[in-house]
Amino acid sequence: MPVWRVLVLGYDGAVDLRRTRLAILGSTGSIGRQTLDVAAKYADAFEVVALTAGRNADVLAAQVKRARPRFVHALERSPALEDAMSAAGAAWLPPEEIAAHPDIEVVVVATMGAAGLLPTLAALRAGKAVALANKEVLVMAGHLVRRELERCGGELRPIDSEHSAIWQSLWGEDGHAIRRIILTASGGAFRDRSLEELARVTPEEALRHPTWRMGPKITIDSATLMNKGMETIEAVWLFDVPMDRVEVLIHRESVIHSLVEFSDGSVKAQLGVPDMRLPILCALAYPRRLAEPVAPPLDLADYGQLTFGKPDFERFPCLRLAMEAGRLGGTFPAVMAAADEVAVERFLRGEIGFLDIPAVIERALERHEPIAEPSLDEVLAADAWARQVAAATPAGAR
Amino acid sequence: MPVWRVLVLGYDGAVDLRRTRLAILGSTGSIGRQTLDVAAKYADAFEVVALTAGRNADVLAAQVKRARPRFVHALERSPALEDAMSAAGAAWLPPEEIAAHPDIEVVVVATMGAAGLLPTLAALRAGKAVALANKEVLVMAGHLVRRELERCGGELRPIDSEHSAIWQSLWGEDGHAIRRIILTASGGAFRDRSLEELARVTPEEALRHPTWRMGPKITIDSATLMNKGMETIEAVWLFDVPMDRVEVLIHRESVIHSLVEFSDGSVKAQLGVPDMRLPILCALAYPRRLAEPVAPPLDLADYGQLTFGKPDFERFPCLRLAMEAGRLGGTFPAVMAAADEVAVERFLRGEIGFLDIPAVIERALERHEPIAEPSLDEVLAADAWARQVAAATPAGAR
Repeated sequence: MPVWRVLVLGYDGAVDLRRTRLAILGSTGSIGRQTLDVAAKYADAFEVVALTAGRNADVLAAQVKRARPRFVHALERSPALEDAMSAAGAAWLPPEEIAAHPDIEVVVVATMGAAGLLPTLAALRAGKAVALANKEVLVMAGHLVRRELERCGGELRPIDSEHSAIWQSLWGEDGHAIRRIILTASGGAFRDRSLEELARVTPEEALRHPTWRMGPKITIDSATLMNKGMETIEAVWLFDVPMDRVEVLIHRESVIHSLVEFSDGSVKAQLGVPDMRLPILCALAYPRRLAEPVAPPLDLADYGQLTFGKPDFERFPCLRLAMEAGRLGGTFPAVMAAADEVAVERFLRGEIGFLDIPAVIERALERHEPIAEPSLDEVLAADAWARQVAAATPAGAR
Repeated sequence: MPVWRVLVLGYDGAVDLRRTRLAILGSTGSIGRQTLDVAAKYADAFEVVALTAGRNADVLAAQVKRARPRFVHALERSPALEDAMSAAGAAWLPPEEIAAHPDIEVVVVATMGAAGLLPTLAALRAGKAVALANKEVLVMAGHLVRRELERCGGELRPIDSEHSAIWQSLWGEDGHAIRRIILTASGGAFRDRSLEELARVTPEEALRHPTWRMGPKITIDSATLMNKGMETIEAVWLFDVPMDRVEVLIHRESVIHSLVEFSDGSVKAQLGVPDMRLPILCALAYPRRLAEPVAPPLDLADYGQLTFGKPDFERFPCLRLAMEAGRLGGTFPAVMAAADEVAVERFLRGEIGFLDIPAVIERALERHEPIAEPSLDEVLAADAWARQVAAATPAGAR
């Protein structure tokens, strides 16, 4: 059961001038770049100590030049990166070692897929605060993350706008008193399309998302509602509630970022214009609220109205599959996430249709022989198995 | 400046079976009756130690029979009340003494007009928690309440749904970080009427309020938006912010009960179906969330949409007058509240028109010679002066 520990014994207005020391893992992705923007905007509050990337060595080189971190890592080195590192006096250090380094306070995990898993566990084992944007970490291995969290006294701060809204709504509250977590969903680019229209969606269409600017994988996951499905599983682990307390509410304006209903019936929510820099800032600055707004102010009178509806599990089977995998637990969510990753890649390459994405995932889930409470190796084995099944499932298999 | 002191060092799930001991001042009014309902529903959590009323001795008698308080008071005694008191073994004790009695933990001030002033100050002076529903207390003497609060370590918990929403949104937050307080307003019964139509409104029409069931004075104040204007002044004192940080947002569904914008741009809100029992319960149970919902659950998908707009200060001059009186401070808010009380009574008696209400208030404010930082006697003198002026102002004086 959840336990919120809070100790704020008064506040005398004195300003702490010491800067919070950050590592940004996955700094060249969308969230990583915005995290760097936030850290630069509030340079008095944050110091960037480490940056890591995957294969974008040249983008990383430019970031290293500007932010001058002490530690750097990437999957590939480039001459530009070597130059930037020399100029900054930066050392090469693998992500897991960065995550546990004593000079780092907050580890921003903005990597993709399974890449965030080991650094997240390493950071929590070292008792650090992890600002988590990599959803597969909790989807694949939420039980392992939760275990380290409870064993080692680290801290998990969500960066997703939805989970940040729930987290902020829980500040000062008792986690035992959660009755329902209500995740809002814009509904994706195709919320108004029929099943027949969905079958004909092309990758080009699917990459135009109405509200948030994001990478291609998460844009497709938003269109299928798989993204929201994964968020339900993340919520289960972040806030330690069973899946039957998690609901999805369609809210196309994406202004109410999510809501919590408490045991006494009160509902709290966090709102804002859609801008990822706010949840990023909250995760970096917690428990402080910094003095300058990071995003334009919200004016509800300008919006005029906000709309709400129930999700359609028929047209968006990925949401149903994800919530079901989350309910079953064990290796099922890892299988679902891996199959989704492969299916989305295949859709973007034009190999399968939009509605083949849930069909490919469902095939993998049906064939899977699950393991309850899996070890990390068992999770990774289930992931690898699901990728093979998903790659081999023919289009039109539903 | 605001200081939020929070000390919650873990929570082990053990249940405290000791009941919170309540005094309910003004128990026969709308809020008082609902407070008794809440206390009865959660009889394991609350013990009603004292009840007081004004002139409803027989209603009070029935309440005393059921709740069996130890202390009772009313402006008039009746045989039924004497009988009920004997049966309950209750003693007669004036409100100010009840408010300071060592056996009472939370003093619910649900009286009307100036009646709550002395008991509120007495309770705070005794370091108790005051659950405040009597808005005139803060409107007339917010600076005096604030002074006792800061000097004696008592606690103020709002019962109004709007202020409860703001209060709940501030749990776990630093009060210094408030950028804006956004009070929502249903807009009152006549939100869609033109100025000419407003001039012809009758008392009977005005007593039908769309959302909340309330007494006649507050129903008329809701229709003129004076109620919302007074709430802006209450917010200034409850949350220790200047009036220029308080805004009013028209939201006719009354589902978002109010919002707070923080310095970093994040906005938090509390929501629920319109039901006063929830803010009452929150004020009684703080910092706990009781385990059973007191009101029907909120389903935003059922609502479908929520709407928002800016208030119209032309058609609803009472809102402008109240915010201006709050900005000016001193004895102005007391004059405004007293003139409003008289003007509403005169409107209900058919002596003056609906639009004469703001005209009568404005006349009193214009003629008033203000005192900054007034004593309680000076506040009460300003109140008495304003009543005379308001009673003497002819209809059509605008």
